[in-house]
Amino acid sequence: MPVSPAKTALVVSAHSADFVWRAGGAIALHASRGYQVHIVCLSFGERGESAKLWRKGNMTEATVKAARREEAQAAADILGASVEFFDLGDYPLQITQEHLLRLADVYRRVQPAFVLSHSLKDPYNYDHPRAMDLAQEARIIAQAEGYKPGEQIVAAPPVYAFEPHQPEQCGWCPDVFLDITEVWAKKYAAIQCMAGQEHLWEYYTRVALQRGVQAKRNIGITAAKHIQYAEGFQSVFPRVTEELA
Amino acid sequence: MPVSPAKTALVVSAHSADFVWRAGGAIALHASRGYQVHIVCLSFGERGESAKLWRKGNMTEATVKAARREEAQAAADILGASVEFFDLGDYPLQITQEHLLRLADVYRRVQPAFVLSHSLKDPYNYDHPRAMDLAQEARIIAQAEGYKPGEQIVAAPPVYAFEPHQPEQCGWCPDVFLDITEVWAKKYAAIQCMAGQEHLWEYYTRVALQRGVQAKRNIGITAAKHIQYAEGFQSVFPRVTEELA
Amino acid sequence: MPVSPAKTALVVSAHSADFVWRAGGAIALHASRGYQVHIVCLSFGERGESAKLWRKGNMTEATVKAARREEAQAAADILGASVEFFDLGDYPLQITQEHLLRLADVYRRVQPAFVLSHSLKDPYNYDHPRAMDLAQEARIIAQAEGYKPGEQIVAAPPVYAFEPHQPEQCGWCPDVFLDITEVWAKKYAAIQCMAGQEHLWEYYTRVALQRGVQAKRNIGITAAKHIQYAEGFQSVFPRVTEELA
Amino acid sequence: MPVSPAKTALVVSAHSADFVWRAGGAIALHASRGYQVHIVCLSFGERGESAKLWRKGNMTEATVKAARREEAQAAADILGASVEFFDLGDYPLQITQEHLLRLADVYRRVQPAFVLSHSLKDPYNYDHPRAMDLAQEARIIAQAEGYKPGEQIVAAPPVYAFEPHQPEQCGWCPDVFLDITEVWAKKYAAIQCMAGQEHLWEYYTRVALQRGVQAKRNIGITAAKHIQYAEGFQSVFPRVTEELA
Amino acid sequence: MPVSPAKTALVVSAHSADFVWRAGGAIALHASRGYQVHIVCLSFGERGESAKLWRKGNMTEATVKAARREEAQAAADILGASVEFFDLGDYPLQITQEHLLRLADVYRRVQPAFVLSHSLKDPYNYDHPRAMDLAQEARIIAQAEGYKPGEQIVAAPPVYAFEPHQPEQCGWCPDVFLDITEVWAKKYAAIQCMAGQEHLWEYYTRVALQRGVQAKRNIGITAAKHIQYAEGFQSVFPRVTEELA
Amino acid sequence: MPVSPAKTALVVSAHSADFVWRAGGAIALHASRGYQVHIVCLSFGERGESAKLWRKGNMTEATVKAARREEAQAAADILGASVEFFDLGDYPLQITQEHLLRLADVYRRVQPAFVLSHSLKDPYNYDHPRAMDLAQEARIIAQAEGYKPGEQIVAAPPVYAFEPHQPEQCGWCPDVFLDITEVWAKKYAAIQCMAGQEHLWEYYTRVALQRGVQAKRNIGITAAKHIQYAEGFQSVFPRVTEELA
Repeated sequence: MPVSPAKTALVVSAHSADFVWRAGGAIALHASRGYQVHIVCLSFGERGESAKLWRKGNMTEATVKAARREEAQAAADILGASVEFFDLGDYPLQITQEHLLRLADVYRRVQPAFVLSHSLKDPYNYDHPRAMDLAQEARIIAQAEGYKPGEQIVAAPPVYAFEPHQPEQCGWCPDVFLDITEVWAKKYAAIQCMAGQEHLWEYYTRVALQRGVQAKRNIGITAAKHIQYAEGFQSVFPRVTEELA
Repeated sequence: MPVSPAKTALVVSAHSADFVWRAGGAIALHASRGYQVHIVCLSFGERGESAKLWRKGNMTEATVKAARREEAQAAADILGASVEFFDLGDYPLQITQEHLLRLADVYRRVQPAFVLSHSLKDPYNYDHPRAMDLAQEARIIAQAEGYKPGEQIVAAPPVYAFEPHQPEQCGWCPDVFLDITEVWAKKYAAIQCMAGQEHLWEYYTRVALQRGVQAKRNIGITAAKHIQYAEGFQSVFPRVTEELA
Repeated sequence: MPVSPAKTALVVSAHSADFVWRAGGAIALHASRGYQVHIVCLSFGERGESAKLWRKGNMTEATVKAARREEAQAAADILGASVEFFDLGDYPLQITQEHLLRLADVYRRVQPAFVLSHSLKDPYNYDHPRAMDLAQEARIIAQAEGYKPGEQIVAAPPVYAFEPHQPEQCGWCPDVFLDITEVWAKKYAAIQCMAGQEHLWEYYTRVALQRGVQAKRNIGITAAKHIQYAEGFQSVFPRVTEELA
Repeated sequence: MPVSPAKTALVVSAHSADFVWRAGGAIALHASRGYQVHIVCLSFGERGESAKLWRKGNMTEATVKAARREEAQAAADILGASVEFFDLGDYPLQITQEHLLRLADVYRRVQPAFVLSHSLKDPYNYDHPRAMDLAQEARIIAQAEGYKPGEQIVAAPPVYAFEPHQPEQCGWCPDVFLDITEVWAKKYAAIQCMAGQEHLWEYYTRVALQRGVQAKRNIGITAAKHIQYAEGFQSVFPRVTEELA
Repeated sequence: MPVSPAKTALVVSAHSADFVWRAGGAIALHASRGYQVHIVCLSFGERGESAKLWRKGNMTEATVKAARREEAQAAADILGASVEFFDLGDYPLQITQEHLLRLADVYRRVQPAFVLSHSLKDPYNYDHPRAMDLAQEARIIAQAEGYKPGEQIVAAPPVYAFEPHQPEQCGWCPDVFLDITEVWAKKYAAIQCMAGQEHLWEYYTRVALQRGVQAKRNIGITAAKHIQYAEGFQSVFPRVTEELA
Repeated sequence: MPVSPAKTALVVSAHSADFVWRAGGAIALHASRGYQVHIVCLSFGERGESAKLWRKGNMTEATVKAARREEAQAAADILGASVEFFDLGDYPLQITQEHLLRLADVYRRVQPAFVLSHSLKDPYNYDHPRAMDLAQEARIIAQAEGYKPGEQIVAAPPVYAFEPHQPEQCGWCPDVFLDITEVWAKKYAAIQCMAGQEHLWEYYTRVALQRGVQAKRNIGITAAKHIQYAEGFQSVFPRVTEELA
């Protein structure tokens, strides 16, 4: 592009840990290159993704949420991103038109160069596609001159679906691999903030290694640098480019 | 990519005019940036795409082929690319294993940074997907160390399907738009070499204008330069990138 | 499975007769093997599937519902299952979050070993996929430790879509055939309870015969017993097995 | 069909200009053959499709809506159709059950022989598939004897999705081409009523020309009359016919 | 269409009985309306669809073929169509380029107003999609002016896939229902010619009844005549029309 | 099933190592339960999957093939299966009708209770879907009474596609998970026979661990035994069952 895009990005995460497993590398990598990455956590995942916390006993919804908020904030700090919490409740996410417009306002404020959210389908977790739908519709509204006329509208930032837990069952297919080798240590540190989901640490380490191998299989040149860890993303929209190599 | 890829490209065209309508802009654009673009025309389209020539009367297969070769060579010259003709016959393309290996050898010689060919499905033209299949399988063979061991194998250059005549019926969906505004004059000049298919000149001008409008709708930044003409492409493989904006 | 699953099953039926046409054989078969099968009828189908009753004249919504309830209860009795009615109204089904949690509570109570509901798409009947969505999301909530912490959560029971009225138009494809020959008489008796929809009796008899023929075509062994009647189902989730034969 | 269908049609348009770009030819053609075509505009597109009006300055939502209503009415007059406005608001369309039943009542009143609305998917515009869903579900309710018993129900009129702005990205594929050459002048005159969207005039002229070329490529007989302009439609339901030619 | 199409049709049948089960109604109906329907049987189905004949004992390939030819000829006579046999062998169909051109020549000779063949996919029978591919590619060649220049080329007759044995498993979805009630007796008489496949008689009777019920569910007008038997077809190409009702 | 199926299985592997990575666990598990598992290696993968061997230098096609045969035989021995080599050449697999019938004869001899082969699509490796196509068509021929009449035909054994290297890109989605924890040591020992592809050892160990985690997420009962390693498979055909739990 002749004009350099704003160095900002927006991540819409259904529950407070999703952005770590699924996009922690992309966040850390772009942050390390000067991007201001902003994360919106729609819920704390207090019902659906806090099993270990509840099993501790003596927990209330408030204490679970507080623990989850702390973990997410710590992870965002490590990755170098800002984070805000909509606290909509999970299982199910309880979204009204007010939240849609609130997220549209975040788009207007952030003016993201790209957007990350969930897969369009997930039979294991209905909150995930709901979050993606919200992210997409809020973008559409933020693009409209007739919404809060006079404000700076957003352009057409690319939207990517990050990796769900069981990719094939979600009809998710990566068409972009991002080399995250140089920020892997940060991602793994952020992962370790998720004390309540320790069973996933090694799972997502293996995901990153597998995607790294696959990325190497799709590089167009033989002398490419070594890729060890990668993240996969699926584009929602076509991209505009000036070179096909 | 840290190492700059070879500035070469390969175009596999079922009939001798396909590369003009469907990828003339991409060819001219990359040629203008120093790419050596090489075109393989599998056939002259003597049966299927030379109706106007045949209607002239007094034509033989040989004279039709000669006329089509001349047109294709002139178009390639204008676009700035080299071209070679496999002369396999069309309707149907008559492909044997010998041609598959011959094309693999072209891959080895050209070492393309990217590859363009037809859509994977085309109910109006069985030669088109057959050409794409050949392009893909030849790439696979050229990647194998055990094929002519000792030769320089090829890496994993991205492969794109260029636009078929009736895109929706072919299940083709562009995920990349290439801005070809700056080389449109060359593409239109190349199009005009196709004297036998004048009915398609305006059709493909309109295609370029429509894709130009659509490209503008998918740009992530508001201050983007003006795009008037574009070509659409569909990726076969995921791409590896270092930035998502 | 080394541990035998609970012998319970849950059927979520949009209207009060759907479970008969689409899953009556599965219900009767499992009931005959000791399963406690529980049916939730979300509505009585008073608007959409009671044409014959309305045509009688002198009917009110209340009398139509009462007639439909009676038919459904009689059918469930014949099949050997329990049934409960949510009475949400049909055309459209009017579902709120309260009903979602109510169904999640049914999951917790029943602890089903498998679940049956509608196809994921049905252009002829929007209530049907809505019922399936509800069945799936209620399952997800019932699996979450953070929903009513301390209660026994449910595992991951397989979910099957039973056969819609026009299967191809609904994108429904059976990946399981269940031999219902031995309980066909019960299913047909249950079908006959649906006095208001007599035009469907022979239609669904033929469906069972066709699926029977198809089941025979997919048996891995030549000496299989005779299958005359079958029901088809489409799995939503992968299954876990210990043998592939 | 042995009995000639009612010569009426229903068009459900998300925003007040959609029916012009996407179905203006079909409307004018059928009107010219004696059909009473009725258009329902669910919103004025005041937020999402009135950028040029807002840029004029000194506009309020009320003045934008009034301008859009005037344009739409003028276009409908030219095409020969009646139009009514639900004024539900756009970006997002705000649909409740009340509107669903209101549209069902329109079906009952109009008794359409066919129905036109939006594509089932549109990642650029969530209002569009929402309008189609409403159109489909209202049709289902209008077919039910139990909805307002005693009224004349509707049969199963074919439903077509008209062309979205970026067809491939919407998964839209035309299976019907309608020759609109004889009413093109009317469609273009109606297009010109849309003063606020002048950038689309030539875009949709080119769409009509491209679809015209494609229509000619799909005619079963060689002596067909000349088609210059066409519109494409995608069927939602199978059609019933008495001849396959 | 302003010019009435040639009243001819072409049916391409992989094995000698396919045309009866899958398209016997369409053949009889069009024949009864003055169409010259021509059937090409690519093979006799001597290996794959003659189990009962082989079980008789004392059979050779020649005697099986002769029996199958006789049955097919008798069925064609009843339906009112001409038939020719390519005798390519089955399981697998053994197709060369010579047969492709031979079938293209049939197209040139017949100049069909429409074409019927198999589904594009059939995991139970690889000969079926192979026959459809042949039918489609031969059509493409017959359309080309450069194939046997000077001959009358064919236009773009619609191609339909008739119903396979297990429709959902073949990804086949009918988008056209043809009312065959008035010729059902002829179809059933033709079916009875297939002495070797008596187990299919009732199966395909039920198919016709089910499709009849479904056809009635998709009629746009309430006063439609009674449909009892129907056949379903899936279009390969878009159709061109002058009216959407 | 009332009659227990033959305890035999057939694996069709395009190259000599595929069966190890993709189905080694299934082979070892069934072998350990008394199944006679027979593997057909269509080629040695001498061109496409022997890069490390070729890099050693001083290799000929014959020596590479010999090394690959030895590795495959050793792996089959560890897994407890018999193996035979068709030696058709790879990149591309060179299949004729003779090989199709040869494989049909293997089906007749083995009478498999189930069949394993490759995914139906693989843009990285055209030999893989070609092998699956061969496996499926040979099964069809082996089912036909008219092929070598008098021989014992095969029934309809289920066919499964085992996991390709980049599953999402191959459109492969597992609908069955097989717990291979108890035979993992054997599978890993067989993997280690593949000296020429050491870079894949850890890759496929991670695949097994990921599928193990996913399998646990899809178990219908809470008290299930621990699954650590699993293999995923995609069914080609519907299965016939007598219980849905």
